[in-house]
Amino acid sequence: MPPRHQADVPGLVERARAGEARAVARLISLVEDESPLLREVTAALAPHTGRAQVLGLTGAPGVGKSTTTNALVRELRSAGKRVGVLAVDPSSPFSGGALLGDRIRMQDHAGDKDVYIRSMASRGHLGGLAWSTPQAVRVLDAAGCDVVVVETVGVGQSEVEVAGLADTTLVLLAPGMGDGIQAAKAGILEVGDVYVVNKADRDGADQVRRDLRSMVALADRPDDGWAPPIVKTVAQAGEGLAELVAEVERHHAWLQQTGELGARRTRRARAEVEAIALAALRRSWGDLGGSDGQAGLDELAAAVAAGETDPWAAADRLLEQVGART
Amino acid sequence: MPPRHQADVPGLVERARAGEARAVARLISLVEDESPLLREVTAALAPHTGRAQVLGLTGAPGVGKSTTTNALVRELRSAGKRVGVLAVDPSSPFSGGALLGDRIRMQDHAGDKDVYIRSMASRGHLGGLAWSTPQAVRVLDAAGCDVVVVETVGVGQSEVEVAGLADTTLVLLAPGMGDGIQAAKAGILEVGDVYVVNKADRDGADQVRRDLRSMVALADRPDDGWAPPIVKTVAQAGEGLAELVAEVERHHAWLQQTGELGARRTRRARAEVEAIALAALRRSWGDLGGSDGQAGLDELAAAVAAGETDPWAAADRLLEQVGART
Repeated sequence: MPPRHQADVPGLVERARAGEARAVARLISLVEDESPLLREVTAALAPHTGRAQVLGLTGAPGVGKSTTTNALVRELRSAGKRVGVLAVDPSSPFSGGALLGDRIRMQDHAGDKDVYIRSMASRGHLGGLAWSTPQAVRVLDAAGCDVVVVETVGVGQSEVEVAGLADTTLVLLAPGMGDGIQAAKAGILEVGDVYVVNKADRDGADQVRRDLRSMVALADRPDDGWAPPIVKTVAQAGEGLAELVAEVERHHAWLQQTGELGARRTRRARAEVEAIALAALRRSWGDLGGSDGQAGLDELAAAVAAGETDPWAAADRLLEQVGART
Repeated sequence: MPPRHQADVPGLVERARAGEARAVARLISLVEDESPLLREVTAALAPHTGRAQVLGLTGAPGVGKSTTTNALVRELRSAGKRVGVLAVDPSSPFSGGALLGDRIRMQDHAGDKDVYIRSMASRGHLGGLAWSTPQAVRVLDAAGCDVVVVETVGVGQSEVEVAGLADTTLVLLAPGMGDGIQAAKAGILEVGDVYVVNKADRDGADQVRRDLRSMVALADRPDDGWAPPIVKTVAQAGEGLAELVAEVERHHAWLQQTGELGARRTRRARAEVEAIALAALRRSWGDLGGSDGQAGLDELAAAVAAGETDPWAAADRLLEQVGART
């Protein structure tokens, strides 16, 4: 294999569009590794994107996200869809790499050329999940996936992020995983387009659904006319998946009818453009200092930490030095 | 009360430094609400900061963070320390405001003028937790708190953030809260300076400690000579708190001896300066468009979403328009 910076990007994009898994893998690696070719990759993908339906799937540890993703892929496959899965681990910037669970899971669809599953760790320096995931979605979109499922682990800000990049956000809960206040803290009441009560064969599933229904009704959600459905599933047994897919389809139709699909995708592009611009600025001010009386960010930060200047004055200085008008 | 933009900032800072709780509350509100006076507030606080010891306390829902914070405050108070607590809810950008649990908890220290407890929701637009929390820490620091405890809910990126803003990061676990893979996913193995196994009277506490010890040993942690201790507590009964405070003190002494304290605070200031600079830039490019052939971020984002341009070219255009050299 040639070194990554020598990759034939147009060739890779052509092969990915023809469905070649190795080319898809290579392009995602270029994105994930923040290759110098990243820019060329994104530009080459741009004309071929916008067709895939992007689903975000999130929830607290233990609710069965991996199992549900797996069952969802099976359901989508039986409807003849090409499916891409990005399993994102936003909370491990240090360790990187795939975790055991993902490797086990992949075997279910091994050999199916119309399923592409990839684990991503937001180990990069440019902006983690916010940065590399949308670009990996573009790769799968350009490669002809009808549906791209982005699965994120954990609770907390990751939901908010996944909600930002998906057309439809699925939020998973399960009985026995914590009470209502915890759910409210996790911010899940505001971001879900479709709620899934998984492990619905366990005690308390109906109670979770009732609690969720009343809490979602009280949550500070956009007044856009979409009432998020709550679907019960037993992903392990494949139960409820047909209904889940039907609700996802219904939401997608709603997105298209209301123009919300375009609005969401524009917001996604907005975040992406910003992330790229900010990364460029970070590089610029990382290069400052050492000459002409310029102060680099480290120097300014040390002065702030010492109480010699305040962070606003330091920020002004920083921007002034890269020539930005604010 | 006068409107917020008419607040007498130097007077407020003086009164906060004299320990007046209402002035502290007002300053934190100015920070949290992203008041036009924010800049003046931060500048006025700067000379009076850098003395407080900042502790971050984090862990998954259900491990007993609130109870532990409460017990920790009691322990610190019995040692004569002035204590500030910021209970941060990073995952609820929409709902805002304090949650029930915090209100209950506060009553324990009601009437103690040397304890200041405040719930914060990162509801702001500028950058949430990353933005307002360090500035609220400055308020409490300038107000003479010896220790500021920043408690964050949830797992996921919030730990990484709290680790960035604290001198010492305490990570809480409890028996029965999920297996090792979940712990690894949450990224907690890399960021803790002191680990706490709470609810240590429950079955499995020793097993959690053993697992944690071996997993931390294998984690990709900085090779800085600090071996994070693991303390067992029953916060509800006040057990283990003296040992916890002793380990926090030991870590603080280590930070000072090695120069790591200054390094961490510089990193914290760095993040803060960057956040401010980025917010200023966001305002600038929000103002673009509509005249002179300039394209605002929304317009550029729509072109990207439509596949008409790629996000790199859009980012270039954006930066060029605000005059930034990259």
